[in-house]
Amino acid sequence: MYRINVRDHFMIAHSFRGETFGPAQALHGATYVTDATFFREDLDADGVVVDIARATEVLRRILGRYNLTNLDGLAEFEGVNTTTEYLARHIADALASAIHAGDLGETARSLDRLRVTLHESHVASAAYERPLHA
Amino acid sequence: MYRINVRDHFMIAHSFRGETFGPAQALHGATYVTDATFFREDLDADGVVVDIARATEVLRRILGRYNLTNLDGLAEFEGVNTTTEYLARHIADALASAIHAGDLGETARSLDRLRVTLHESHVASAAYERPLHA
Amino acid sequence: MYRINVRDHFMIAHSFRGETFGPAQALHGATYVTDATFFREDLDADGVVVDIARATEVLRRILGRYNLTNLDGLAEFEGVNTTTEYLARHIADALASAIHAGDLGETARSLDRLRVTLHESHVASAAYERPLHA
Amino acid sequence: MYRINVRDHFMIAHSFRGETFGPAQALHGATYVTDATFFREDLDADGVVVDIARATEVLRRILGRYNLTNLDGLAEFEGVNTTTEYLARHIADALASAIHAGDLGETARSLDRLRVTLHESHVASAAYERPLHA
Amino acid sequence: MYRINVRDHFMIAHSFRGETFGPAQALHGATYVTDATFFREDLDADGVVVDIARATEVLRRILGRYNLTNLDGLAEFEGVNTTTEYLARHIADALASAIHAGDLGETARSLDRLRVTLHESHVASAAYERPLHA
Amino acid sequence: MYRINVRDHFMIAHSFRGETFGPAQALHGATYVTDATFFREDLDADGVVVDIARATEVLRRILGRYNLTNLDGLAEFEGVNTTTEYLARHIADALASAIHAGDLGETARSLDRLRVTLHESHVASAAYERPLHA
Repeated sequence: MYRINVRDHFMIAHSFRGETFGPAQALHGATYVTDATFFREDLDADGVVVDIARATEVLRRILGRYNLTNLDGLAEFEGVNTTTEYLARHIADALASAIHAGDLGETARSLDRLRVTLHESHVASAAYERPLHA
Repeated sequence: MYRINVRDHFMIAHSFRGETFGPAQALHGATYVTDATFFREDLDADGVVVDIARATEVLRRILGRYNLTNLDGLAEFEGVNTTTEYLARHIADALASAIHAGDLGETARSLDRLRVTLHESHVASAAYERPLHA
Repeated sequence: MYRINVRDHFMIAHSFRGETFGPAQALHGATYVTDATFFREDLDADGVVVDIARATEVLRRILGRYNLTNLDGLAEFEGVNTTTEYLARHIADALASAIHAGDLGETARSLDRLRVTLHESHVASAAYERPLHA
Repeated sequence: MYRINVRDHFMIAHSFRGETFGPAQALHGATYVTDATFFREDLDADGVVVDIARATEVLRRILGRYNLTNLDGLAEFEGVNTTTEYLARHIADALASAIHAGDLGETARSLDRLRVTLHESHVASAAYERPLHA
Repeated sequence: MYRINVRDHFMIAHSFRGETFGPAQALHGATYVTDATFFREDLDADGVVVDIARATEVLRRILGRYNLTNLDGLAEFEGVNTTTEYLARHIADALASAIHAGDLGETARSLDRLRVTLHESHVASAAYERPLHA
Repeated sequence: MYRINVRDHFMIAHSFRGETFGPAQALHGATYVTDATFFREDLDADGVVVDIARATEVLRRILGRYNLTNLDGLAEFEGVNTTTEYLARHIADALASAIHAGDLGETARSLDRLRVTLHESHVASAAYERPLHA
């Protein structure tokens, strides 16, 4: 199995609801250094998993929706706790949609699965990994 | 599949028995920068894999048993080579016991598996990954 | 010249005023991975620059004032842009006060200077370095 | 499942053929910081996955074939695009041959699988993972 | 003294002349992960050393001149060994020119000095630091 | 001013005397990831600060004196606390002697100063910087 990984970041404000979050119930924020990892069984005709420049562009576009925002004010996150885990899945699903829409090129449609990892500090991260086909 | 990772470290002395260890048969030591990774299929009701603060605390407590000790003098390691691989499993098993005992919270009992990685330098590490249920 | 460095982090929300900040004028946030570096000409009687455990504790206490807050709502930052550079100095000055107050031990009073570096992502950081004596 | 990881690097020139590579069709180069990860179900009699010193030596020897060369001029790469993904597999296959030849020791023959990751920068990497037995 | 640091990278081919370079006399290549560090005594009216987004853009533009090229074929490097040290200075001087030309904004003209660090691997780097005013 | 940096590591056991060291008075150990940084005003005739391969070799030789030992048992450390700061200076002085002895080549004698940084974990390090000429 092959994989490639590209990295970017986004910076947001948010808050959590629920006593288990303790002081993180207050409005605070985070830089999420984000790794997007794409897996496939065989390389495409160009000898790549997916074009690294194109994957970087698509990741930047998706993170750009949230970069420099307060997630608490975005309609798509209404009523949810935007935990690092939740955001990892949210971004993974957005990348999957981009792949299915052909944004990473025709051959990217045969990618096997992808993983999104959000590093919230030098000592903590969360990730979500999913298949790209049922 | 979701995962979260928390990082801490511990500093120990030890020595190895067996010719294959060459100069590492002498008493020496290591800093082990330790990653504990927790996996689960679905998020709990709070939208997390496991509480990062609580996971950090439990990891610190477990590493604290060994931090600033000479492993050669601890009864639990009598007769074994405390290689990086061996220690990764030992700490993974201790974390699994803590999870089963409820130390990471009730919902942590439904975690799927965990991995412990010990970085012994900038160029070498070892890890052990195990399921949490038979 | 000797130095020691200890690392911790804090996570905040804030916004900037001024057209030069473009989209960063909106409420957003950051994780600041923070390095505190202490310099001195000679070691103290124990053979250290300053006790690493104590330096870590004092840094954690200072960062704890801001961790999980919205800086826009704190009186001490009223009317200022809490840029990474500004915060680096603010924390450096707080550390200098702690040193002069004896919080890092008596011998820490003879430290020469200190630097605080805030890493806002894997690709950007800011720092402030200052002497500890006029 | 246990694993160990060792890291080294090599520095090469190369170029790519095909319009999809855009400006990378020109002769350029890369430093590949290389992680070799070895997996096995159980530890050997010495309590290790494979000897870290020996794994480091074998990895250095394999990377040494390519270090400080122009890959475009090597017969083994004639007619192929030496993408990061392709090279990850090429090195993984060379390591697998070394394992089967006994270069990592007799017990290394029972390793389960291996992964080779090539980091081409601080923001991009590729990897190939394969079993060691049919 | 304040400073900010921004990071980017470029990938090149080159070769060295002179017996002291041994095997590096052959055509090979490198990824240079590049840190540009800007120093100034006081913050500007916006509370920054220099705008991080603008510094990142200018650095990218300068590295873009060399990215994905063979340095041996560029007129500006004719007759010189493009060692990591030499390139660090070359890029630092190009950044200084950009600052003096106003590319980083009017207030950037009062920057004090700058440093450029090129990381050629996880174990080696070179840097050049220079004042910005005579 | 130019500089180059090379990195290696060593793994030791030791203990400290003095109540201020608390639990570190017990025998324990550390991995020291070690950066040696060499500074000079102008490049030599080959266009380098000092040969990176040669600097790496000399650093490895010096660290090799201590790697895989118990520092408490070495005559040269009798009666001293081998703190990270102390070791940073010890290794810096050994490197300075090697430079003066010509081990890094004739032109290395005109190096200006050097710094040795010992990273004892992902969150703590110590360094010593010294001139090479009176």
